[in-house]
Amino acid sequence: MDIQHYMTEVGRAARKASRAMAKADTSAKNRALELIAAGIRRDAALLTAANRKDLDAALASGLAPAMLDRLTLSEKAIATMAEGLEQIASLPDPIGEISNMKYRPTGIQVGQMRVPLGVIGIIYEARPNVTVDAAGLCIKSGNATILRGGSEAIHCNQALAKLVKEGLSGAGLPAEAVQIIETTDRAAVGALITMPEFVDVIVPRGGKGLIERLMKESKVPMIKHLDGICHVYIDDKADLAKALPVAFNAKCHRYGTCNTMETLLVARAVAPTVLPELARLYAEKQVELRCDPEAEKILTGYAHLKAATEEDWRTEYLDAILSVKIVANVDEAIDHINTYSSQHTDAIITEDYSRAMQFLREVDSASVMVNASTRFADGFEYGLGAEIGISNDKLHARGPVGLEGLTSLKYLVLGHGEVRV
Amino acid sequence: MDIQHYMTEVGRAARKASRAMAKADTSAKNRALELIAAGIRRDAALLTAANRKDLDAALASGLAPAMLDRLTLSEKAIATMAEGLEQIASLPDPIGEISNMKYRPTGIQVGQMRVPLGVIGIIYEARPNVTVDAAGLCIKSGNATILRGGSEAIHCNQALAKLVKEGLSGAGLPAEAVQIIETTDRAAVGALITMPEFVDVIVPRGGKGLIERLMKESKVPMIKHLDGICHVYIDDKADLAKALPVAFNAKCHRYGTCNTMETLLVARAVAPTVLPELARLYAEKQVELRCDPEAEKILTGYAHLKAATEEDWRTEYLDAILSVKIVANVDEAIDHINTYSSQHTDAIITEDYSRAMQFLREVDSASVMVNASTRFADGFEYGLGAEIGISNDKLHARGPVGLEGLTSLKYLVLGHGEVRV
Repeated sequence: MDIQHYMTEVGRAARKASRAMAKADTSAKNRALELIAAGIRRDAALLTAANRKDLDAALASGLAPAMLDRLTLSEKAIATMAEGLEQIASLPDPIGEISNMKYRPTGIQVGQMRVPLGVIGIIYEARPNVTVDAAGLCIKSGNATILRGGSEAIHCNQALAKLVKEGLSGAGLPAEAVQIIETTDRAAVGALITMPEFVDVIVPRGGKGLIERLMKESKVPMIKHLDGICHVYIDDKADLAKALPVAFNAKCHRYGTCNTMETLLVARAVAPTVLPELARLYAEKQVELRCDPEAEKILTGYAHLKAATEEDWRTEYLDAILSVKIVANVDEAIDHINTYSSQHTDAIITEDYSRAMQFLREVDSASVMVNASTRFADGFEYGLGAEIGISNDKLHARGPVGLEGLTSLKYLVLGHGEVRV
Repeated sequence: MDIQHYMTEVGRAARKASRAMAKADTSAKNRALELIAAGIRRDAALLTAANRKDLDAALASGLAPAMLDRLTLSEKAIATMAEGLEQIASLPDPIGEISNMKYRPTGIQVGQMRVPLGVIGIIYEARPNVTVDAAGLCIKSGNATILRGGSEAIHCNQALAKLVKEGLSGAGLPAEAVQIIETTDRAAVGALITMPEFVDVIVPRGGKGLIERLMKESKVPMIKHLDGICHVYIDDKADLAKALPVAFNAKCHRYGTCNTMETLLVARAVAPTVLPELARLYAEKQVELRCDPEAEKILTGYAHLKAATEEDWRTEYLDAILSVKIVANVDEAIDHINTYSSQHTDAIITEDYSRAMQFLREVDSASVMVNASTRFADGFEYGLGAEIGISNDKLHARGPVGLEGLTSLKYLVLGHGEVRV
């Protein structure tokens, strides 16, 4: 198989399909989503069988247990995929929305229309549900998409691809609007990220290693997510009835997610009160605390205590580990965050109005919170309906990326024969 | 001079200044703009003298007349720079604007705040007025900026840099918020576009050659403009009283601008009427018409007639040349545009409602117009107040880029101690 030739054909077909998708009716797009959902429910047993094949191959090749877990498509996961598509169908269509049409002194009227980006390439690892979520979001936002899933999930992805194509055709839309790369050859990824003539944006979903590799080689703009080094700062004007549950939830609700707190900052004035109380909560979960010298002193006797090194402030543990630092005040907390945060999500706990406002304005992260757990940084929790990922970038989409992040605004000018003088 | 070391110091200072600019008061930013404007008016003679030095050096080195023209800073141009800054001061401050704060079922309230991008690198050629326009837009939008002007304008740029620094300091803002690269060494550009740790976005302003070179090497996202292959389609339902002046203005108002029409499409049914009338107008300006066979036949006898080649549909002439093609209808016009246009600006002339709507929806360009000249595609004409450039990109900013294009949205979450369950 000539990969370069194959990918060029895929790219050309995607570009062509994107033209049809850009002008597709809302009803046709929703119909496609509903047909795919119905197909998934109908063929649940076939999908389970395909997934079984992938799991057997993965077991034989000794895939890590965490990857096996992600690869597994349970009955519940199959139902969730179908529901997800129906939810996307129920969201308002962002495409064609016209805003801010204003008359100018020359007589022309100028505003903007929301339009699809065109062709979106999505590169992801084991999880087969990404195939359906990504296809659904791209269909609704009027884009064509090229999906490159992990080779571990190839049987399941092929079975899902068939259902997606049936749904598109059933709704009168081009089947090539969603193409799933049929080869597991890595060269396909290299081709996908270097054909800007056919692909408008790449969304990589996977570990930091994958994304750093893609960043080096890509000739196509990316909406990407690197790491989540999230902070909670407990101010000396914090209400402890809020601070304790938030700081516990931000660390212990789930360890492996990007919006989990990795560093806790505590104002010096309240540290002797707050830290021992928090330590009692963390002790139940055996959370290891890596502390600066002041915090270490306060926490003497805690079973899982360690001294923090400079490296700890830069580390995303994704585990039952938390770095802890005492700061003088909100200014020092903001300085620390703007130095070490990955600009993902950071929160302050305070009852002080001015400090809350200062934190919201000055912390340079995609999500900035007052008196809430960092775990809320999520497309569904924010009301976007669904998300294709969380962006660490500043250009275009920042934070959770939903349907709107897959669109762009073009200018409209309505005239009556005006010319420029 | 160690360029890499120098640029690292410039980058570090810019990053630091960007923190101060992000939280600067609207009044301080406006004060800086007014002080710089006053300095420019006060030192007009000094600026003219500095420009004289640049012009003498350029003459001695045999710079092309077009470049000499751009390099020249007339008295009027100096006054216009000062006025431009005062206009920017009078625009609303986009930074800190909070929008769409909505309660979610969990109790948190979620919305967005407009924030600066951070550090903006601007690379441009001869024109010294870009130094002031770019500095002004970056100051107002709360960004720090690193400016790399053409070596031809170095004396003038240094004189302007001094005034900008005085204005910033006078308003209590860091002088490093606007840094002008003091060396004409080309390695400085190479360094600027490869330090994503200090620079958030690059705005290149210059010819296609410069931008294509930067695209290859840049490790920093770019807001860029390549070429402007703009179309006007005259539909068979066009009002000729609108079609003729618009088609004449779009080509002849200025030849060298990116929003000038380069290809005229005419519906077959009206071509025998429209083309001879238009040719009478174009003949006055001796516009060369490069025609497809049908149009050539209709225009037999026109003094500056040529047969168009495939290459003509892809060419930005920036000159008194126009390619002309007959099409069957609006569908064929849209197909031609979506194939050959540089996605800059395209217009339809029609009185037919459905065709106007179809054209607006289906033409995939940054600006799409009905019954108006493509020459209107411009930040000032659109009411943005000023522009840092026109973007051909789809991600982030599309079309004329004003203050808002130099900003981004972050998510705010206001809670009352909520945790995720």
